[in-house]
Amino acid sequence: MNILAIDTSSLVATVAVINEEKLLGEYTINTPMTHSQKLMPIIDELMKQLDLKMDDIDLIAVSRGPGSFTGIRIGVATAKGLAHPNNIPIIGISSLEGLASNIPFSEYLICPIMDARRNQVYTGVYKWEENKLNNIVEEAPLTIKELTDILLKRKEKVIFLGDGLNRYGKDIIDKFKDKAILAPQYISMQRASSIGQLAFNKVKNGDAKLKSYLDIVPVYLRKSEAERQYEEKMKRCLCDEES
Amino acid sequence: MNILAIDTSSLVATVAVINEEKLLGEYTINTPMTHSQKLMPIIDELMKQLDLKMDDIDLIAVSRGPGSFTGIRIGVATAKGLAHPNNIPIIGISSLEGLASNIPFSEYLICPIMDARRNQVYTGVYKWEENKLNNIVEEAPLTIKELTDILLKRKEKVIFLGDGLNRYGKDIIDKFKDKAILAPQYISMQRASSIGQLAFNKVKNGDAKLKSYLDIVPVYLRKSEAERQYEEKMKRCLCDEES
Repeated sequence: MNILAIDTSSLVATVAVINEEKLLGEYTINTPMTHSQKLMPIIDELMKQLDLKMDDIDLIAVSRGPGSFTGIRIGVATAKGLAHPNNIPIIGISSLEGLASNIPFSEYLICPIMDARRNQVYTGVYKWEENKLNNIVEEAPLTIKELTDILLKRKEKVIFLGDGLNRYGKDIIDKFKDKAILAPQYISMQRASSIGQLAFNKVKNGDAKLKSYLDIVPVYLRKSEAERQYEEKMKRCLCDEES
Repeated sequence: MNILAIDTSSLVATVAVINEEKLLGEYTINTPMTHSQKLMPIIDELMKQLDLKMDDIDLIAVSRGPGSFTGIRIGVATAKGLAHPNNIPIIGISSLEGLASNIPFSEYLICPIMDARRNQVYTGVYKWEENKLNNIVEEAPLTIKELTDILLKRKEKVIFLGDGLNRYGKDIIDKFKDKAILAPQYISMQRASSIGQLAFNKVKNGDAKLKSYLDIVPVYLRKSEAERQYEEKMKRCLCDEES
């Protein structure tokens, strides 16, 4: 089963093809270009190098969020577009679970943090138990204080990773001292191979049902800026009418 | 400091650019094509996508072996060729240490195994101690029996990875039962980002001195088939003369 994996939930565009035997290839670009500029060229390039066509792909695994709203939309829309001609099923994988998978078989808590702006991070807490990665604190947008309060109570060592480190890395070390490890560059960002492997495991273990590509939807965990502003405006209008 | 990292010690061709802030990009191809066909095109493609020229590269990190003799020669020769015009320093990194770095911050022993043919594997044993990856059993070509005898004495859980799993994975599980973890596909093979990160750490910690690109040499750990056959032939000739 060849799985094409895509993650565009952060600034990183990353694509991979993986099957039951091996990771066939992976291409990751971490530049400020927009995903609409960089995603399709790297998918096209990787597929050409691997001498694969979309006919050879049995499943598309896409990071369904949380993360950059535009990034996720581009990733999911691209996956749907590629899936359409051959009716390839798509599986949506959490971008945070993907990040946590970059740290395989660790005994420590794993805490991916993605900068969600408005003083929040998209986060969740994961732990390897019996060679399986489990989610132990539900994914949510939290302030760094809310997150560190939860983690400090557990008194366990924590590995932090993700683009939230750029902004909050120093605060974390100040609070956790040697109870925190900030992941080094090479494993701190999204990797499509992690998304592909998670998809492979979920299908193999029966943890995920393959659905039509029509049914996959992003998971933002928060309302978009436009929705928030619209709701505030509506509230103000109602207040004005009532007053 | 932008580091261009290259690993061609196995069938996998993998290149990456990393600096103190982030992994800028990584491109990995795991196909049966020869490295002379696939290495330069993926370096060229990655550099173009990152909008980098060799003038922007401050250090080349190359996997210096052990592994495929031809693969290593192509990797090291390519690194030297790219280094020559700008006199860029090169640092040689162990392919096995690179593999072991794919499993960051694990409490278990980490044992990369690369198929060395003639019933041997290139191997070594690594362990994370105080957030640092240490080599605790020296790298050597060993039979799988020699290796497993060493490891079973330690009574610790071991994560195995590398292309040696294809041939010896089943034997390992038979011997170690639940004391062995065979790394899943997504982290089992060479990644240039691991080579780049190791180079970065070694330079930063002063564990490696930057040398001229002229001085880098492969580390094969074993004589090549041609050398071995030549020596045997010479021995036979001497015996014939003496008899």
